[in-house]
Amino acid sequence: MRVLGIDPGLRNMGWGVIDANGSRLSHVANGICHTSAGDLAPRLLSLHAQLSDVIAQYQPDCAAVEQTFVNKDGVATLKLGQARAIALLVPAQAGLDVGEYAPNAVKKTVVGVGHAAKQQIDHMVRLQLPGVEIAGPDAADALAIAMCHAFHARSSGRLAAAVRAAS
Amino acid sequence: MRVLGIDPGLRNMGWGVIDANGSRLSHVANGICHTSAGDLAPRLLSLHAQLSDVIAQYQPDCAAVEQTFVNKDGVATLKLGQARAIALLVPAQAGLDVGEYAPNAVKKTVVGVGHAAKQQIDHMVRLQLPGVEIAGPDAADALAIAMCHAFHARSSGRLAAAVRAAS
Repeated sequence: MRVLGIDPGLRNMGWGVIDANGSRLSHVANGICHTSAGDLAPRLLSLHAQLSDVIAQYQPDCAAVEQTFVNKDGVATLKLGQARAIALLVPAQAGLDVGEYAPNAVKKTVVGVGHAAKQQIDHMVRLQLPGVEIAGPDAADALAIAMCHAFHARSSGRLAAAVRAAS
Repeated sequence: MRVLGIDPGLRNMGWGVIDANGSRLSHVANGICHTSAGDLAPRLLSLHAQLSDVIAQYQPDCAAVEQTFVNKDGVATLKLGQARAIALLVPAQAGLDVGEYAPNAVKKTVVGVGHAAKQQIDHMVRLQLPGVEIAGPDAADALAIAMCHAFHARSSGRLAAAVRAAS
């Protein structure tokens, strides 16, 4: 199963693609979709095009997007919401199921605790995907989101198999 | 010039299309793109498809979207941001320039005061587009946004003409 993880952001949208074969994970690619300050419509258009290219190139089977922090800064929340819409829309347009995970769930799955520091996530991503070169912190987060989705998909697959076996 | 106005919303996204010929405005169509509660990715996908259909059917020359209130409710702000991304993206994908107007700018242009009540907007829209049947409050707002854009485009066209004449 090939998983695309996306860490939404208007300026920097991290993405990471991994292959999950049972419990074995391997790195495929990662990167950052970037837009510069300016009018919002062309920025969203550019993010849409960049993310569509990633899907066309790496052909993932499913996608996962980080749920967004709602913080006190309404303007930042609004920007993130707009970027997040693109992160959800593009895989859905490609016919992929899109999982959503809270930041704490991603950390808990990948690092083992919900309040892990950025460096811990980076460390665990490098540990589980040996030799990976990471394009930046947003790409590391995206790889962690993909790993989180792979783990949860495997768990629910096991559950479904157990239910089938028991019935 | 045919203008598409959009009032962004995740549950109800109002849209209105008008023709502006100098100072003469005429109604073309209006409606509401609707999505029901559920996973966000399919809702955004549905809004994208519905709004794309409106553009394909009515072939506007340009679009205008209301700027979003940032309110204290972070979750509402996030939802609105996600809907707004679709409202900006779809016309941009169709190659249209997309204007953005603050709610008060729309009211000031259409009604004459920045803090107009909903009913006043509805009244002015009906006055300027005689015989119009309006699909709902969100569609009335969308028509007001389109009228606001038509007015501003005319003003900036006049300004450009004056600059050309003076140079």
